[in-house]
Amino acid sequence: MAGIIVQKYGGSSVADTESIRRVAKRVVATKNQGHHIVVVVSAMGKETDGLLNRAFEVSKSPSRRELDMLLTCGERASMALLSMAIHELGEEAISLTGSQCGIITNDRHSGARIIEVRPIRLQDELEKGRIVIVAGFQGISYKKEVTTLGRGGSDTTAVALAAALNAEYCEICSDVDGVYTADPRVVEAAEMLEAISHEQMLELAAHGAKVLHKGCVEIARRTGIVLYARATSKFGGGTRIDLPGASENVDAVGVSGQKNLVRLRASGDTCLERVLTISERANVPALHLDTDMNSADIWFSLDDIPDWIGVKGDLDADIEVLEGVGAASVVGDNIGGDSAKLNLARSVAQGADINIVAMSSSPLRVTLFCEQSHVDQLVRSLHKEFISKAYAEA
Amino acid sequence: MAGIIVQKYGGSSVADTESIRRVAKRVVATKNQGHHIVVVVSAMGKETDGLLNRAFEVSKSPSRRELDMLLTCGERASMALLSMAIHELGEEAISLTGSQCGIITNDRHSGARIIEVRPIRLQDELEKGRIVIVAGFQGISYKKEVTTLGRGGSDTTAVALAAALNAEYCEICSDVDGVYTADPRVVEAAEMLEAISHEQMLELAAHGAKVLHKGCVEIARRTGIVLYARATSKFGGGTRIDLPGASENVDAVGVSGQKNLVRLRASGDTCLERVLTISERANVPALHLDTDMNSADIWFSLDDIPDWIGVKGDLDADIEVLEGVGAASVVGDNIGGDSAKLNLARSVAQGADINIVAMSSSPLRVTLFCEQSHVDQLVRSLHKEFISKAYAEA
Repeated sequence: MAGIIVQKYGGSSVADTESIRRVAKRVVATKNQGHHIVVVVSAMGKETDGLLNRAFEVSKSPSRRELDMLLTCGERASMALLSMAIHELGEEAISLTGSQCGIITNDRHSGARIIEVRPIRLQDELEKGRIVIVAGFQGISYKKEVTTLGRGGSDTTAVALAAALNAEYCEICSDVDGVYTADPRVVEAAEMLEAISHEQMLELAAHGAKVLHKGCVEIARRTGIVLYARATSKFGGGTRIDLPGASENVDAVGVSGQKNLVRLRASGDTCLERVLTISERANVPALHLDTDMNSADIWFSLDDIPDWIGVKGDLDADIEVLEGVGAASVVGDNIGGDSAKLNLARSVAQGADINIVAMSSSPLRVTLFCEQSHVDQLVRSLHKEFISKAYAEA
Repeated sequence: MAGIIVQKYGGSSVADTESIRRVAKRVVATKNQGHHIVVVVSAMGKETDGLLNRAFEVSKSPSRRELDMLLTCGERASMALLSMAIHELGEEAISLTGSQCGIITNDRHSGARIIEVRPIRLQDELEKGRIVIVAGFQGISYKKEVTTLGRGGSDTTAVALAAALNAEYCEICSDVDGVYTADPRVVEAAEMLEAISHEQMLELAAHGAKVLHKGCVEIARRTGIVLYARATSKFGGGTRIDLPGASENVDAVGVSGQKNLVRLRASGDTCLERVLTISERANVPALHLDTDMNSADIWFSLDDIPDWIGVKGDLDADIEVLEGVGAASVVGDNIGGDSAKLNLARSVAQGADINIVAMSSSPLRVTLFCEQSHVDQLVRSLHKEFISKAYAEA
């Protein structure tokens, strides 16, 4: 069988009939280059947000199972329409749900994790020469219930299928033409990256970069699948997300900003247990954790908590809540392990007169937490020091 | 040119004449399998420690340049002796210093970083069919001064050469036969791993595992070089450190313990600046950083600070110093991102009646800081919960 390429088209790429026709042409053109094509689609435009809003109008805390049932409608509509548009171009296409593609998940509704992919039906269809259109964002649990993968889940579907099918690569197509050194809406001097390693992309995605979802990058990293972040409106170009190469730049590759964070603080004897139990119950990964004998702080992104109001309502009275915080992160090789770079990041914040309320680092990253209203300024200042200077010197 | 293999032999493998003869036989046997061989050697046995002790007897704070000059003697002796032992077996061998191999570093004495490898001379010798013996742990700065790479630097030399020569793989040979799920001297049930990803190994090495040095694993990760951790006394076997594979175990792979840590705490307005400046001046990477508006804590491994007494003497009076602390870490895929696993680690410590003074996590790791005397017990308890249970269920 010829090489397989998985393409994923985001919500804005299938937002209306005209857009869907353009995607159909792009898919067929790729097939005509001699590839087998699997296309993963998101829900059209703001469809998912609309469905979510409607659910919360009906019920303050809708059942997660029913929410999943509702939300999966969005992708079903997109895939059927795209399939029809491809038929119009004279090609054979067939749409498959997450379940039909064999995307098996655990039973954590609205944030399921893919356990296994059994793409038998999908492979059969490809062998018949068909273009296969897959509904992103959804799977089926071992209990045969429809599940959703959480926000950004269509990217995850695409890369999980690419891994299961041993695809040549996976193309994530959107209205953004690649991965930039910072969000170009915030930093005018931001430049598009030609390539970045899986791990660096993972750090950027986990700390605010929106272009790719962290779950998708994590699977690509683990399975070695090459990703391309590309504009739907173009062929080629974009940013390649690949294994770290010998020629990898050892300097900073990007700066990301993150708003809408919250810090929870517990004090006293069982403080650590109490904050971790909140995190476990709400099924939210901690962005950062600070603890001491007397108090424990835990930081979350509200984007990771679908029902923040509910979680907040359940908190014990003595849990201190700080909302309206954010963070800026610099990602690059050996950033977090280099004490001079950590101190430089701190002094950049000081020079910009921005108060740092917490700091965390990993080998590839340093993150400065600050008031949300200062995030953009901090991203600009860090970008100027860590990225623009390096480009100017190169 | 046939494939190149880089082998590194640690201090205990070249500790005496008998050991050197055994290594010579192993090297020649590998060459006879049809490979080009580059051998990197450490100083014999406790040679480096002996030289260091002597230096500190002579001077309380010896010049770092002179220290480097002194310390590089150890490897020179080993390589010359090994070269002679290979000649005795009738093979051609030549020993080269770090400088002769083109290992160019920055000028940070006693902790230099490799900037570039220009192995032209080395390649010439290989093409002549010679076995090349290289002094580990040393390089030459752009200013033509002899530098050393810090402890564990011979592993770094080996993998940097492997990358520059595009070697098939790099074998790190020692008296340990591979990477275990925990230190077998601490955890009786520890099992040897057949394979582990570069990133997981990096987390283990950075948090106490002694079998491979973190600098070496970091270069292997960045350049994609496959490492083998093997016993000098055997052919084959051992643990492969490789790219993350599709079949990677998603559960915990190992537990490491780390003693001899120190926490520095500053309070008040400029607390963050003050602790980071200590870290920068002493050229020590922080293991963990906790900060708040009022205080900042920074954690170091004393193994990373060659001159702790000197650094401690220079600290401002109001920096609070906590010595005698340690940490235990669990490493695996998505450990740090899974709030249930973080809470499980905490409850394991609680069950063992061990007080946790700080906690940190990365996507692949969770670390619990505690009193040094509790580290071994905590490693055993975490291994039982995260590793032995998983093996029992598999």
